[in-house]
Amino acid sequence: MPNFAIGVDLGGTNLRIAVVDEEGRLLEKVTLGTRVSLGRDQVIADMVTAIRSLTAKFRDLGTILGVGIGVPGIIDLETGMTRESPNLPGWSNYPVRDEIERGLNAPVILENDANAAALGEKWLGAARDVDDMCIFTLGTGVGGGIVLRGRIWHGMSGMAGELGHMTIDVNGPLCKCGNHGCVEVFASATAIVRMARELIDSGKAPQLARVAESEPEFSAKIVYNLAIQGDEPSRAIFRRMGASLGTGVGNMVNALNLPMFVIGGGVASAWDAFAPSMFAEMLKRSMVYAATAPAQLDRSGAQSLPATKLEGAAAQVGPQRYGKTTIVTRALLGSDAGLYGAARLPMMTSATSEDAEPAARRRA
Amino acid sequence: MPNFAIGVDLGGTNLRIAVVDEEGRLLEKVTLGTRVSLGRDQVIADMVTAIRSLTAKFRDLGTILGVGIGVPGIIDLETGMTRESPNLPGWSNYPVRDEIERGLNAPVILENDANAAALGEKWLGAARDVDDMCIFTLGTGVGGGIVLRGRIWHGMSGMAGELGHMTIDVNGPLCKCGNHGCVEVFASATAIVRMARELIDSGKAPQLARVAESEPEFSAKIVYNLAIQGDEPSRAIFRRMGASLGTGVGNMVNALNLPMFVIGGGVASAWDAFAPSMFAEMLKRSMVYAATAPAQLDRSGAQSLPATKLEGAAAQVGPQRYGKTTIVTRALLGSDAGLYGAARLPMMTSATSEDAEPAARRRA
Repeated sequence: MPNFAIGVDLGGTNLRIAVVDEEGRLLEKVTLGTRVSLGRDQVIADMVTAIRSLTAKFRDLGTILGVGIGVPGIIDLETGMTRESPNLPGWSNYPVRDEIERGLNAPVILENDANAAALGEKWLGAARDVDDMCIFTLGTGVGGGIVLRGRIWHGMSGMAGELGHMTIDVNGPLCKCGNHGCVEVFASATAIVRMARELIDSGKAPQLARVAESEPEFSAKIVYNLAIQGDEPSRAIFRRMGASLGTGVGNMVNALNLPMFVIGGGVASAWDAFAPSMFAEMLKRSMVYAATAPAQLDRSGAQSLPATKLEGAAAQVGPQRYGKTTIVTRALLGSDAGLYGAARLPMMTSATSEDAEPAARRRA
Repeated sequence: MPNFAIGVDLGGTNLRIAVVDEEGRLLEKVTLGTRVSLGRDQVIADMVTAIRSLTAKFRDLGTILGVGIGVPGIIDLETGMTRESPNLPGWSNYPVRDEIERGLNAPVILENDANAAALGEKWLGAARDVDDMCIFTLGTGVGGGIVLRGRIWHGMSGMAGELGHMTIDVNGPLCKCGNHGCVEVFASATAIVRMARELIDSGKAPQLARVAESEPEFSAKIVYNLAIQGDEPSRAIFRRMGASLGTGVGNMVNALNLPMFVIGGGVASAWDAFAPSMFAEMLKRSMVYAATAPAQLDRSGAQSLPATKLEGAAAQVGPQRYGKTTIVTRALLGSDAGLYGAARLPMMTSATSEDAEPAARRRA
């Protein structure tokens, strides 16, 4: 009989719940709206009801290892409380884990949603062949997760991986975290909409202005659609977004020299529009990336680089000189990365301890 | 009979060699000028001669475990070659380790100088009670080193820890690495001199101008001396330097949530002049630091913060709410950190392998 786990992706908009077996097969997926407006207790009740109905359905087919829940915000891993969760007002300092465990009689493990996405991509996605990786998740905000030696790097209090709030432009726009010039104010869906509105207000983006007027819910997706249709102001927004993301990713390449960096979250689907600028900026700004970029990429990317790159030490180092390359790629699991990663949590000995080991490796 | 090792700090200016025993006692220290102008072979010959004379002297007192050498630049850990070393022209792709081993008949281990400093502070300095730490070394350039679980984090090709080349101001001054707005262009000795010359040229720093004219070797130390004497333009330089360093350190706190960050290198001796601005900037910019700063610091630091800090999410989290604090402090070993760390290298099973364990722990 197979073992399986329940993964939950608790987003500000959608509540998604999946049954996943130990081989990574998704057996069933349920998507509910997160009825945030009805309050926290209603969301918890919706979640418990859905999990109960799924476990009842799969109980006879195998062993339920537990429930993993990816939550946007800072989690206290020891107590299972949510700490800061800007997209889930009213959840701060709430004992989410205990409440859900009480309703289910199954072990529940909380995890930051970007960390869960990192774990998902490590398990089944783009990073499945590496032990060390880092993810940037681009959504309403920008999240981050770091996996070292196959395990999420939590830091001393579970707050590691706040890569969206890395300062890359000390004089940049104000972020909701209180800082100026975070990656998030350039590379999130919110940032794309803000940059579009700024261009509209300046009168320099007639097509964007027309669409913004006709669409009641102006979104990053609309800007992307215009960009792939060739609208120059929309393309410029994604170039700026890609360059900013590349600056942030490049900083992490310099710091950790990991073999793989994965770009996930909803905005990653605009890859075509931002990736060329991201790669160009990384080559220009990150000496470790420039020294370890795949050769093919460097050749194509270098054509669009300013002369300063060629004068810099980074260029002198040259690509692949050390025989190991830094791969920067899209999340293979798309927006399901966090859902798979959440399901993975109960399959590990302990998601909070530094001794956490994937179950597969434990058995090996 | 005690075991001891030879540590070498190969700087662009000084070549320092020490005999250190396994308890961390410095038995003897030799400081030579690095005769870079006479060429690489002369420097190696000087080094081998000095190491030979020290080992001859201590051979009868105990076992020589080997020689560790801290080198400014990128090291290929597997082959023991120097790769990029801007401050040691002519050393690129030179088999330093093999050359020195041949001259000595003792195992030689190379390490990046900032990584060696991290290891020294971890072993005997400010970070001796933590397993995870990060160092920023402020000298001619800005180096970085990361220790996780008691071991240097090398990354996939030994290039991790390039924290001085983290972009914090996308529009900032050009760095010698080819990037703009690295931490190094604000927080190195070179940067302090550049900022001083800029102020002199603008006519806004009469005292600095007078001193620059009378001193043939205008240096960061001279700017510091004026700053502690109350010269306002000199103080402003260190405020800017501290704020920039704080931005960079804050980014790493956000990314890794480590318990300790150490500031080392020669410029760290200007701590009084830059630390207040560094702490203020970290509280303002780094949400993880703001959430984990020691309470006392937050109280004193908060007084000088702008209102935006109080409006931001970082402020809402509050210090010490999670019971664990982030300590940012000076290197206790001062400029000897790298020397002790280099001596530590041969005491570990393997400095290059991920299985490297301090000898003391191995025996425990």
